[in-house]
Amino acid sequence: MKIEAPRIGSFIPPVRTLMGPGPSNVSTRVLDAMQRQTIGHLDPEFVGMMDDLKVLLQYAFQTANELTIPVSGPGSAGMETCFVNLIEPGDTVIVCQNGVFGGRMKENVQRCGATPVMVEDDWGMPVDPDKLEAALQTNPEATTVAFVHAETSTGAQSDAEALVELAHQYDCLAIVDAVTSLGGTPLKVDKWGVDAVYSGSQKCLSAPPGLSPVSFGERAATRIRTRTTPVQSWFLDLNLVMGYWGEGASRSYHHTAPINALYGLHESLLILAEEGLETAWTRHRANHDDLVSGIESLGLSFVVPEAARLPQLNAVSVPVGVDEAAIRSRLLTDFDLEIGAGLGVLAGKVWRIGLMGHTSTPENVAYVTKAIGTVLAD
Amino acid sequence: MKIEAPRIGSFIPPVRTLMGPGPSNVSTRVLDAMQRQTIGHLDPEFVGMMDDLKVLLQYAFQTANELTIPVSGPGSAGMETCFVNLIEPGDTVIVCQNGVFGGRMKENVQRCGATPVMVEDDWGMPVDPDKLEAALQTNPEATTVAFVHAETSTGAQSDAEALVELAHQYDCLAIVDAVTSLGGTPLKVDKWGVDAVYSGSQKCLSAPPGLSPVSFGERAATRIRTRTTPVQSWFLDLNLVMGYWGEGASRSYHHTAPINALYGLHESLLILAEEGLETAWTRHRANHDDLVSGIESLGLSFVVPEAARLPQLNAVSVPVGVDEAAIRSRLLTDFDLEIGAGLGVLAGKVWRIGLMGHTSTPENVAYVTKAIGTVLAD
Repeated sequence: MKIEAPRIGSFIPPVRTLMGPGPSNVSTRVLDAMQRQTIGHLDPEFVGMMDDLKVLLQYAFQTANELTIPVSGPGSAGMETCFVNLIEPGDTVIVCQNGVFGGRMKENVQRCGATPVMVEDDWGMPVDPDKLEAALQTNPEATTVAFVHAETSTGAQSDAEALVELAHQYDCLAIVDAVTSLGGTPLKVDKWGVDAVYSGSQKCLSAPPGLSPVSFGERAATRIRTRTTPVQSWFLDLNLVMGYWGEGASRSYHHTAPINALYGLHESLLILAEEGLETAWTRHRANHDDLVSGIESLGLSFVVPEAARLPQLNAVSVPVGVDEAAIRSRLLTDFDLEIGAGLGVLAGKVWRIGLMGHTSTPENVAYVTKAIGTVLAD
Repeated sequence: MKIEAPRIGSFIPPVRTLMGPGPSNVSTRVLDAMQRQTIGHLDPEFVGMMDDLKVLLQYAFQTANELTIPVSGPGSAGMETCFVNLIEPGDTVIVCQNGVFGGRMKENVQRCGATPVMVEDDWGMPVDPDKLEAALQTNPEATTVAFVHAETSTGAQSDAEALVELAHQYDCLAIVDAVTSLGGTPLKVDKWGVDAVYSGSQKCLSAPPGLSPVSFGERAATRIRTRTTPVQSWFLDLNLVMGYWGEGASRSYHHTAPINALYGLHESLLILAEEGLETAWTRHRANHDDLVSGIESLGLSFVVPEAARLPQLNAVSVPVGVDEAAIRSRLLTDFDLEIGAGLGVLAGKVWRIGLMGHTSTPENVAYVTKAIGTVLAD
């Protein structure tokens, strides 16, 4: 019955160039921050760091929302935070799906005991506002619209501002998935009136995975405070979480915050603030444009129409007859280079090349173009 | 509307001696591991690390359970993983409460749409097996018993083996909170027949907070596979999570794992395996015994009766007339030493002194004794 101690050594990871759909490469500054001494989650010094982190997140989201925090879990925990807090059993929620993550939203709605009404667009296309409006007209009981701003599974960007405006016209709140957009492409939470938004630490912020920045506007906060049923998750119940992340010195213990991961996110947000959001957006766009030239020079083509392409996530069609997994495997083995596979209906049909955050550099564009060209030519 | 970039500097935490209820001090080895280069969550090298991590967790839990993984969130996410997967709406769950965390279990049961039957013991006392048996007799419809092995809020240890045996006699599964026990005091998942157990990374394992090791036995796994209602959390649904953490090379993406945090946990579990579980348990006991001598020499007394005291978490009564918060504040300011406050009914009445994992050393015992003596004498 006794289990003996296993003989295992320390794990020394290889150094990869991370050009998949996330995680992106993490800078030395952020890794150094993660290595600093752990302190207590109620230490006044740590509480001061939390306050700064909120201000930095407000900048990244372009919002003055008080309820702006990193959820202590990955992006899917951030998604669930939005749904379990804003949706009640019996609600009708309009979910726009044009890739994997709209489907995950549907799952969340169903598990909240609510009814999803799906608005479907082809994978690789942006969400069609006309279809959303039609669904809003035929479902006047809907309380909420949910959609993905930047579909990580396809690389398509939707017009978040227009979709949020439609939701509001029909008296719905808007939940926006900004996992891949935050820090890489314009996202203006207050200007667009986004009610609830979630993101991830490991995309254009280039911190390690594991944290999910979220922000809730006043309409959303009011809905959370006035729900008639308890939030089904204790861990993600914002009424409780805010006792820890809220204003004032007397933070009450809810759960133990992931101290060192938060050090890393804090440093990654500092780097973004130093560069400036607009400059970061411009950089992502410029490196994307170079990638387009490089990829097209190899005779390859993009899945998403030019106007809707995300600069930070590029779905490239796999040429007929090419074993896409074998190519990725060779890139990893011979070039220490990770690119992503397709998901869902695009599995086997596309590669996903990320140019996110710290990864988005001219050097990496040149490297991935050269490497893919070399491997395809063999 | 535009939010300007805030002017904030890097966060350099102070170096503290962490002798509260967790986090405990993190060793340089673990901090160094967290600083290593981030790689992808589907990288074959990372998948190999995950396999090793499972073996290391099986050793720490003393189990051969295949379903042994770290949940990508703090201990409260691990707790919720156990409840949302094992409990269905309409179930009756017997919850033993002798501190804060039994109360949190009750919340979890209610939010699953199930009915908690509470078995109450005084805070500071272990769970009384006779009371549990009485509850099992009067509630034959109960499907599950839940209790806390090591109550972090009081420092009381319950007889997990006896409580699990009772649960089984009445055909219930047992969910055990081992957040503070894992690695610090004997916990034998297979020998005791524990069906589901969760812990935290930041207590006796001395990794940073943010991960929750869990393990599920065959009876629990069967119940999860044969549930008639969906798990209410998509993020914590083990049917999905195991597609990523399960056997074989073809891991399917569920959520993006917290890569660098897992590096840290891996290293912390290596340190435990190198020391050996029994040696770690003995060390925790010996340092506790020294702490008892030191604290009693100051004229202070312990809350928990000697036989039920956890070596790693020591609740000490605050002398009448002493402002307990002022003492903790001075310890932090003058000694860079963190000890914990009381929670719930013990708020204001006790200090909680942790001797967990890397923190459990003779040096720290001497330091905390000296520091408290100095501050109390002022």
